[in-house]
Amino acid sequence: MKWTLVEHGDARTYVLVADPGEDAVTVLGEFAADQGLTGASLTGVGAFSGATVGWFDREQQEYRPIHVTEQCELLSLVGDIALGPEGPQVHVHAVLGLPDGSVRGGHLLAGDVWPTLEVVARETPATLRKTSRPEIGLALIDIDRTT
Amino acid sequence: MKWTLVEHGDARTYVLVADPGEDAVTVLGEFAADQGLTGASLTGVGAFSGATVGWFDREQQEYRPIHVTEQCELLSLVGDIALGPEGPQVHVHAVLGLPDGSVRGGHLLAGDVWPTLEVVARETPATLRKTSRPEIGLALIDIDRTT
Amino acid sequence: MKWTLVEHGDARTYVLVADPGEDAVTVLGEFAADQGLTGASLTGVGAFSGATVGWFDREQQEYRPIHVTEQCELLSLVGDIALGPEGPQVHVHAVLGLPDGSVRGGHLLAGDVWPTLEVVARETPATLRKTSRPEIGLALIDIDRTT
Repeated sequence: MKWTLVEHGDARTYVLVADPGEDAVTVLGEFAADQGLTGASLTGVGAFSGATVGWFDREQQEYRPIHVTEQCELLSLVGDIALGPEGPQVHVHAVLGLPDGSVRGGHLLAGDVWPTLEVVARETPATLRKTSRPEIGLALIDIDRTT
Repeated sequence: MKWTLVEHGDARTYVLVADPGEDAVTVLGEFAADQGLTGASLTGVGAFSGATVGWFDREQQEYRPIHVTEQCELLSLVGDIALGPEGPQVHVHAVLGLPDGSVRGGHLLAGDVWPTLEVVARETPATLRKTSRPEIGLALIDIDRTT
Repeated sequence: MKWTLVEHGDARTYVLVADPGEDAVTVLGEFAADQGLTGASLTGVGAFSGATVGWFDREQQEYRPIHVTEQCELLSLVGDIALGPEGPQVHVHAVLGLPDGSVRGGHLLAGDVWPTLEVVARETPATLRKTSRPEIGLALIDIDRTT
């Protein structure tokens, strides 16, 4: 994965490009940690040779994995980065296009990049913080703790 | 729904987070009206316990409602805010992920937030105006009237 | 297609609105060429009376076309503009909502706008360049050549 800063100033904007064989979730997490991002919005496109997306099961309080085991277009990657209990946390959802034009999607758990992943990350000057919500089973952005 | 201004200056950027049980369309409309937004682009993710999306029927000149009556990931919310004949008008489309990874979507008519909805709204310094188009049955952004 | 500059400065932001009967890919390409855009991210919504999306076939090194021959909501248009070997190159993916709420999508090859297409284009002050990758069959954004 390579990235470049395309816009300086208070609200920095980065463009990231991942290479074939990299995992989208891993590289986004590494980028967020390396840059110490505490607030950003993400949009992107690309394609995967396979991916796993999740649907949140309220009963089980966990993501039910859905495996896409073929080449698919990444039609949209939308999400954000916020400061979770253990550091910057990437939260992205993905929509995937299959060979016949049908579509799958969910919370992105893994995406095997091929041939590319192009993501624009716009930093928010404010720090977005997540608070663990045990009754839900997730940490959610808590606007009251924004600084 | 809570929101915070994450970027000041000419082009203000807001992050909004809606709470469980709130209706996405209602809170976005209230936000736009309260802040007097006359131009903004929106992107977001989250999840709904149910939603109604619409497909525009050209013959009937109205949205045909499609009901999703189960927990679904909000894979993308994309749209804008512009000044319509009766004030700020929110226009957002939604892509929804079901438990098996299949996907539904349309013009968002209602979305029951659970557990969260995270939206970034980027104000455009210019005012975007909509003009009613009776031959279509909608008000559309009219670039000639931007100021 | 009409466009307006909604935000000046180093990182210009444009809003584009296409008219009924225009082709989305053509107007975005013309806009990019006319403005000499060498780096931008795009998001948009709208609707098409028909569209063709593509899935990239690794064996054939080309997009397999998928035709949607009915009115559909453009649920998301996400992508970018970068400087390719022959000038500004628009790369956008589209998610399309059908009358029953089911969804199709892919790399956007053609989209017959009806009644509108609303796109926000955010220029990146840096120039994004694409490098032809014959082993893949595409030109990809090459971060090392960003200036």
